[in-house]
Amino acid sequence: MKRKQRLRAMLDSNESEIFIATQRPNQIYLLDHSNPAKVISRPNCFAIIFGLQKDIVFPGLCISNACRDLLNSCTVIENRMGEKSPNAQLIDFLGGHGYRKIVVDDLSLSEEIKDAMPQSTVIFQDLGRLLRRTKDERDLIGLREAARVADLGIMTAFSIIKPGISCADIAAEGEYAMRKAGAEYVSMAPAVGGGTFYLDSAEDMSRVVAEGDMVFVDLAINVQGYLGDITRAGIVGQGTAEQILLLDTVKKAYSVGLNQIASGVNGDRIYREVVKCFSQYGWDEYFVHHLSHGLGLGNDLPVISGSESDILAEGDVLSFEPGIYVPGLGGARIENMIHIGNRRIEELTQCPLNLPMAI
Amino acid sequence: MKRKQRLRAMLDSNESEIFIATQRPNQIYLLDHSNPAKVISRPNCFAIIFGLQKDIVFPGLCISNACRDLLNSCTVIENRMGEKSPNAQLIDFLGGHGYRKIVVDDLSLSEEIKDAMPQSTVIFQDLGRLLRRTKDERDLIGLREAARVADLGIMTAFSIIKPGISCADIAAEGEYAMRKAGAEYVSMAPAVGGGTFYLDSAEDMSRVVAEGDMVFVDLAINVQGYLGDITRAGIVGQGTAEQILLLDTVKKAYSVGLNQIASGVNGDRIYREVVKCFSQYGWDEYFVHHLSHGLGLGNDLPVISGSESDILAEGDVLSFEPGIYVPGLGGARIENMIHIGNRRIEELTQCPLNLPMAI
Repeated sequence: MKRKQRLRAMLDSNESEIFIATQRPNQIYLLDHSNPAKVISRPNCFAIIFGLQKDIVFPGLCISNACRDLLNSCTVIENRMGEKSPNAQLIDFLGGHGYRKIVVDDLSLSEEIKDAMPQSTVIFQDLGRLLRRTKDERDLIGLREAARVADLGIMTAFSIIKPGISCADIAAEGEYAMRKAGAEYVSMAPAVGGGTFYLDSAEDMSRVVAEGDMVFVDLAINVQGYLGDITRAGIVGQGTAEQILLLDTVKKAYSVGLNQIASGVNGDRIYREVVKCFSQYGWDEYFVHHLSHGLGLGNDLPVISGSESDILAEGDVLSFEPGIYVPGLGGARIENMIHIGNRRIEELTQCPLNLPMAI
Repeated sequence: MKRKQRLRAMLDSNESEIFIATQRPNQIYLLDHSNPAKVISRPNCFAIIFGLQKDIVFPGLCISNACRDLLNSCTVIENRMGEKSPNAQLIDFLGGHGYRKIVVDDLSLSEEIKDAMPQSTVIFQDLGRLLRRTKDERDLIGLREAARVADLGIMTAFSIIKPGISCADIAAEGEYAMRKAGAEYVSMAPAVGGGTFYLDSAEDMSRVVAEGDMVFVDLAINVQGYLGDITRAGIVGQGTAEQILLLDTVKKAYSVGLNQIASGVNGDRIYREVVKCFSQYGWDEYFVHHLSHGLGLGNDLPVISGSESDILAEGDVLSFEPGIYVPGLGGARIENMIHIGNRRIEELTQCPLNLPMAI
């Protein structure tokens, strides 16, 4: 079922009349444009109402001409300098048209509408599960493109790693390659050192790679509006036996976990399998972050982490990123973008787990 | 008076015992490290308490090794996986040590402490004015460095602008140059077209420059933790008489406004002078954003805008960025970083207002 149909069914089941989308991914998923990167800049589109005969856009303070061209199928209600706030303008619209049953994807806006329209039924729903989780063919085109550019960026970054190069240089080359390949947003976070920690990535861009460092590079990009996300890890030079064990253990955790990914599987089970790989060497306490998050136009569902996990389903696209960071030894993380397809589990990012460095 | 002295005096005047800093710029300003870029990554340092004999750091979920090395003068209280939340841990600490008069820079945390410690006096103060506004010599070193890199980035961007080049290419080259020159964070937002609007910048990176376009490029960077910010505008080719008038009017508004900047002047007066320049041609309705914001480790004070303005003071470093965006004609903005010194008003960014393009 397509997103607008799912939304329509949800509105019907709640006996609600309209849905007000203020979250950018919700807006874009519902606008169904061919290239989400071209639709509506982040801060300036305040609300879009779906569920009427014609979608209505409240652009907030101002809307760009670029956006406007792409909203031909919608009615655009301007909010000009000196007018009421966009929120007040929206509430006037709702009241003026007699809406009484409203679904909103923003908690504080839902409270504001309730206060202003006490006779209305206002339901807050972020709709992550309904709208943002299951990917369609168009989403997959964008996500594959993001994966392609992510592969290029991470390979470029590793290709120049050697003793003496700084994290800033690694990021400069990796980001440049991804920009040139079509990413509209790029951020690369290299972490290097003998005691690299989870949050060392992007911590200190002036840090210089040394022989014997463990290195991991994460990146996040937008391509055609879709998130691309990949991490690779390595050792600069031979490394100690313990560093090699650490890196191999993360790779093993990746492949053990990947083999468990399937529609219908509880993410919690996969999380525990990964922890088991690490606990074999007493390293499970150094696995300090989530294992997966959904990928799409936003940071979508499903999630797999120590505190919450979804049951995986066909159509999910998610990161899969086991990693440990052992003080005094180094850190490693391996991350790919995974699609749970109808017939198979597919790694959208495809570059090798072992990337060659410049040494 | 130095920042810690100002903070001490404020605590004394409130009869408060300690200050809890959760905003990254407040933390870094108070930690007084030689290179703020190396101190504490963004999400992982939850709170720092100042005002005791020894500063205390609550690192939140985890703190990186890189950070830890730089916190030798502080006591670091870990929050490990599976422990209470950092907030609960902080409240336990406050209660356990009998603190009763507390200043916090975060509203929701102050409410949480109040609820948990009803006998305490908890004051919320963001301390923007007290801590973050007046720049010292060390700040100026960082801000000058940020301005130098911003100059380089904007000159690089304009040097390749010609018909046929995309916004993505402009950003790729400009960001690369700034990364290589030492910026630890870069973001460049080119806007091109015949009807460029304020928020067109960064809107569509695939847009391609055409003869007759008006172009403006804004950027934001961090160098040694300090914000760098500059905008330049131009016309691709000859341009129409009206486009030239638009660009000249923005430049004139910039120089008229700059001449008004001085310690003791109400920003509102400067705002009105700038609006007057635009209203001469009926373009004042297209000046839709703030005129100035403070620059430092964060988006500091003072602010000059249509709805609020500070009185300028010696030691301020601020952006100054008049711009108008006329549908069907084009947009232009000129922005420099300005320092209100003891003897003179100094433009920290120094590249020419007219930057040569590749045509």
